[in-house]
Amino acid sequence: MHKLVLIRHGESTWNLENRFTGWTDVELTPTGVEQARNAGRLLRAEGMEFDQCYTSVLKRATHTLWHCLDAMDRTWLPVAHSWRLNERHYGALQGLNKAETARQYGDEQVHIWRRSYDTPPPALEAGDPRSERGDLRYAGLDPEQIPLTECLKDTVARVLPYWNDTIAPAIRGGQRALIVAHGNSIRALVKYLDGISDADIVGLNIPNGIPLVYELDADLKPLRHYYLGDAEAAARAAAAVASQGRA
Amino acid sequence: MHKLVLIRHGESTWNLENRFTGWTDVELTPTGVEQARNAGRLLRAEGMEFDQCYTSVLKRATHTLWHCLDAMDRTWLPVAHSWRLNERHYGALQGLNKAETARQYGDEQVHIWRRSYDTPPPALEAGDPRSERGDLRYAGLDPEQIPLTECLKDTVARVLPYWNDTIAPAIRGGQRALIVAHGNSIRALVKYLDGISDADIVGLNIPNGIPLVYELDADLKPLRHYYLGDAEAAARAAAAVASQGRA
Repeated sequence: MHKLVLIRHGESTWNLENRFTGWTDVELTPTGVEQARNAGRLLRAEGMEFDQCYTSVLKRATHTLWHCLDAMDRTWLPVAHSWRLNERHYGALQGLNKAETARQYGDEQVHIWRRSYDTPPPALEAGDPRSERGDLRYAGLDPEQIPLTECLKDTVARVLPYWNDTIAPAIRGGQRALIVAHGNSIRALVKYLDGISDADIVGLNIPNGIPLVYELDADLKPLRHYYLGDAEAAARAAAAVASQGRA
Repeated sequence: MHKLVLIRHGESTWNLENRFTGWTDVELTPTGVEQARNAGRLLRAEGMEFDQCYTSVLKRATHTLWHCLDAMDRTWLPVAHSWRLNERHYGALQGLNKAETARQYGDEQVHIWRRSYDTPPPALEAGDPRSERGDLRYAGLDPEQIPLTECLKDTVARVLPYWNDTIAPAIRGGQRALIVAHGNSIRALVKYLDGISDADIVGLNIPNGIPLVYELDADLKPLRHYYLGDAEAAARAAAAVASQGRA
């Protein structure tokens, strides 16, 4: 049996401001730092050890991982960064307040943009200063790999090659993996691992900074999963995520 | 031409307490954090970019690198950790106060232990609780690879394989490397790069947290090297390192 741990980054400044973030590289809040350290303390209390960590190229995930490793006293663990673990790209909504956007376009439209599996938000225009083209961290990619918007289906499509080509072979080879990523890159993984339908994934929300443990069989099929720590707190935090896009 | 940057970690708690540290995994002081951030700001102001970072498995170096990457806004850069970049192992002196040790054994003896090329300090005994055997981060090593003490010659012998097998090929392949390590692992590299004699390396000291830039030709022979920032401050900081082991 393999164990895999998934952690969504701690609260970011734009989580706090209730803004669509996507690939915008915002910082953790002090609460987010504390959530990250607490995640590390939970993992340490469980005696969980890891061989390889994976995270995105966004600092709210990287910092969450670093604080987590600090709390575990495992700052020496190898860390791989991939843009494929980034948050879903939120297109032209990036930077906008979720509640204001709901007032402007209606709760229903915002819910579709937030949770529809295959309807992306409006795309960034090519010259938009919010575009990542020109950002050094994406310099190795083909320009068409850098999204201008994404629906969750698009996120799944770019997360899974990293799972299949990098993470899954490492786990099969006996490595204990810790993935610190984002609400939607984790939803993408969970959808794939648990075989959740396109319809049902809409209702799944990932709370910030709470370790989600997957126990996997030899074929990496999930046997069970659970949040570490206070299960009710995890459920409340997930419900709070669900309500962010209402006016 | 290649550019390589070497940084000794910022001030640690045991630098501040003037204790022999070696492989003991102590934290940075607030001054050390500030030195690390300043190193990142200097690199950023110079417009220096990197493709690959290297550090030890000790947190004072890893944290220095992380703070440095934060200040450069390059938290997404890949980081490789190797025990081969660790500080020189200080044997049975680890944890002892440098000035007290000098009062007990004499300045001359401590200077020999600190700076002799081939005389190691007294070894840790096998069962000493300060020994790293059993530490997970060294679990992949043969027990005889884990030192019980080291002279600089020993440190050179275990740093160079990492340079030759990992760092140098990456630089030759066009990667711009940032190495954040320790006083003696950096002295080992500098001795090799500049062809410094066993006798002359005694007088070379590396200040905390000041980027040391090496310009290398295609064969990785140094063309020149210089500290970023205030050259006089770097010289004063290096002189302060030299005077630490006096009663």
